[in-house]
Amino acid sequence: MNKSTITLLSDFGYDDHYVASMKGAILAITSEVNLVDVTHNIPPQDIEAAAYMLNQYWGDFPQGTIHLCVVDPGVGGERKPIAVAFDGRVYVGPDNGIMTPLVQKSHRWKARHLDNEGFYASNPSSTFHGRDIFAPVAGHLAAGAEFDELGSKLLDIEMLDSQPVLMGSSSIQGRIIHVDRFGNLITNIRKQHLQWAELSLQECGFSAGGQIIAEYVRTYGEAGTDPVFLFGSNGYLEIAVRNGSAARGLNLGRGTEVVLMRKNKLLSV
Amino acid sequence: MNKSTITLLSDFGYDDHYVASMKGAILAITSEVNLVDVTHNIPPQDIEAAAYMLNQYWGDFPQGTIHLCVVDPGVGGERKPIAVAFDGRVYVGPDNGIMTPLVQKSHRWKARHLDNEGFYASNPSSTFHGRDIFAPVAGHLAAGAEFDELGSKLLDIEMLDSQPVLMGSSSIQGRIIHVDRFGNLITNIRKQHLQWAELSLQECGFSAGGQIIAEYVRTYGEAGTDPVFLFGSNGYLEIAVRNGSAARGLNLGRGTEVVLMRKNKLLSV
Amino acid sequence: MNKSTITLLSDFGYDDHYVASMKGAILAITSEVNLVDVTHNIPPQDIEAAAYMLNQYWGDFPQGTIHLCVVDPGVGGERKPIAVAFDGRVYVGPDNGIMTPLVQKSHRWKARHLDNEGFYASNPSSTFHGRDIFAPVAGHLAAGAEFDELGSKLLDIEMLDSQPVLMGSSSIQGRIIHVDRFGNLITNIRKQHLQWAELSLQECGFSAGGQIIAEYVRTYGEAGTDPVFLFGSNGYLEIAVRNGSAARGLNLGRGTEVVLMRKNKLLSV
Repeated sequence: MNKSTITLLSDFGYDDHYVASMKGAILAITSEVNLVDVTHNIPPQDIEAAAYMLNQYWGDFPQGTIHLCVVDPGVGGERKPIAVAFDGRVYVGPDNGIMTPLVQKSHRWKARHLDNEGFYASNPSSTFHGRDIFAPVAGHLAAGAEFDELGSKLLDIEMLDSQPVLMGSSSIQGRIIHVDRFGNLITNIRKQHLQWAELSLQECGFSAGGQIIAEYVRTYGEAGTDPVFLFGSNGYLEIAVRNGSAARGLNLGRGTEVVLMRKNKLLSV
Repeated sequence: MNKSTITLLSDFGYDDHYVASMKGAILAITSEVNLVDVTHNIPPQDIEAAAYMLNQYWGDFPQGTIHLCVVDPGVGGERKPIAVAFDGRVYVGPDNGIMTPLVQKSHRWKARHLDNEGFYASNPSSTFHGRDIFAPVAGHLAAGAEFDELGSKLLDIEMLDSQPVLMGSSSIQGRIIHVDRFGNLITNIRKQHLQWAELSLQECGFSAGGQIIAEYVRTYGEAGTDPVFLFGSNGYLEIAVRNGSAARGLNLGRGTEVVLMRKNKLLSV
Repeated sequence: MNKSTITLLSDFGYDDHYVASMKGAILAITSEVNLVDVTHNIPPQDIEAAAYMLNQYWGDFPQGTIHLCVVDPGVGGERKPIAVAFDGRVYVGPDNGIMTPLVQKSHRWKARHLDNEGFYASNPSSTFHGRDIFAPVAGHLAAGAEFDELGSKLLDIEMLDSQPVLMGSSSIQGRIIHVDRFGNLITNIRKQHLQWAELSLQECGFSAGGQIIAEYVRTYGEAGTDPVFLFGSNGYLEIAVRNGSAARGLNLGRGTEVVLMRKNKLLSV
């Protein structure tokens, strides 16, 4: 039988024991599991950043993987602990919108309220559900518990406000949704937007923060010294500087509006 | 048979190969082991911070776990390499006080001087006992070696000076012993101190660095915008700001003295 | 059968999903593998730093280990994806010089161009070969694929310019090649250089950046408050300050030239 994998995403950072305590809670249930850290540097309480991140890696893991997502500013309050089953993986975390990008993909998801306390740690604390509820539930799933045993059915879960990509007649307006370690500016504009708009990238350029990024390339290696744009590995358009940081070079960051349009329009902006 | 877990705590950081080299030394002895990083961001040579941290996570791991703790400013000098058995787990590291909080809990611990060089790497260096002594010993324990084989019995180990909580007639004086990633200020005042003092938290407030924190809550979610205090997940009183940093907001840090007292007294300070 | 270990070295940092995505690609091929992070904080695109680092840990892992090394500024361009077999381990990464220190050790290495696309992910991206080529190849190796199946034979691989240690009649000139978390300044001068030069460390001192480090010690613990030099755990001479940072104290960093010479010469410099 294939051993299960549990991935861990959180805002707990790398200086404290919180992540280790979650792993201890899992390993107390089963030692036959692969534990994979995604990142614990989600900015504290930043649900939107966690949702973005989850959407980047879930599909790189095989079916059967359990994705534990603990960015939980409402811990101990009214928000429900939940699990979502989608495309052969299970997602465990608080019901605060983290799982928005998954359930937006299709209607083929199921959710459970984690109200079966038989899967909790004994005497759960009110401040650390990561250790006392979410990790034990993930551990029991890795050990063979069925999704349907986890608790009551949920027909709706919390959703983040969507940040729409606006399709114009000859332009696409989006925004920067992430800046990675290399300073690449990742936008929410994807391949399908280009197809819908019937724009070809070679004839387009970006306007972002009053600056123009005119050159499309296929790989970082094709870039010269000017900023360029290209499709990143997950199909989002991103703005990059070869062997440098577009974030620093252009002084742009998460949230900035970007517009992709035909170059002739761009020059007259 | 259950697979063993080895946790790793150190001040080696995340930029160097030191942690990986310890893991390589373990995996050269047995590949049937779960390796869990706690944190490697203990401030360099800060034994007190390491001791605090160890005390937070050891009990979240199941019995049989081996806790490797390598904060070792005296490496290659006179301090002994030791192992301590306590409550079904084994702790491996230098004899410099890291294990103080464990052996203060009860007298039911045993210690060994790691003087059986059969469990060392061949040709151990004098500057990296983490790789050449502590990790191999942990690996051999994971592979089935007996605690009593590790070396000579030790009846005493090094202890850090304790930082006492002072119980007054209507107040409890402690200090901030840790600041976590969220800026929560964790004090050394615990549930039992409250019980001994016959103080109820609802009638108390904190004085810390000339500031008053008057409101007790049960969870972060109950807090308003003012700083509050609550019991953290391990039973220590901590000062917090909801969705913000108490450390930044109050400009307080590790070592600061805090006093918990009845609110009527607090207002007249 | 012993379970394989795959180590991961990269410049992907700890804030993004890139490392997790590589692990997902491996675990999609085999779940029977130990995954060990070395560091992902190699400075972006710094091949020289990656080559230095690889040289520090490869030998601490047992034979059979697969070392994945993804610092890849040329991704998607002309550089070849390769694997190198050396001393019972396999190294997988881009052909850009990362593996220089290994193949400089002896002529007993073999290399393959990873041109057998049967070991790639389906539809590999042009911007993330870590996930789509290197990790899958490592996963297949861990699952039992033979080195010789990976692709065509390569007789030459890219090499970094070597940074020679210059042997004088009564001095050895090298440079600082790494600064670790403790601020230790690690030079490229090794034990064998001392033997060739017939210098004994007790009679020598360092000149570095206009400063003199005169005292040799065997362990950090022997040092007083002045900077000292000693052999680090991998046999390189390093300059250290006990319980402090030599990098900060001496204001020196990577690249600085250092000269080891007889003390009588040193004082007359």
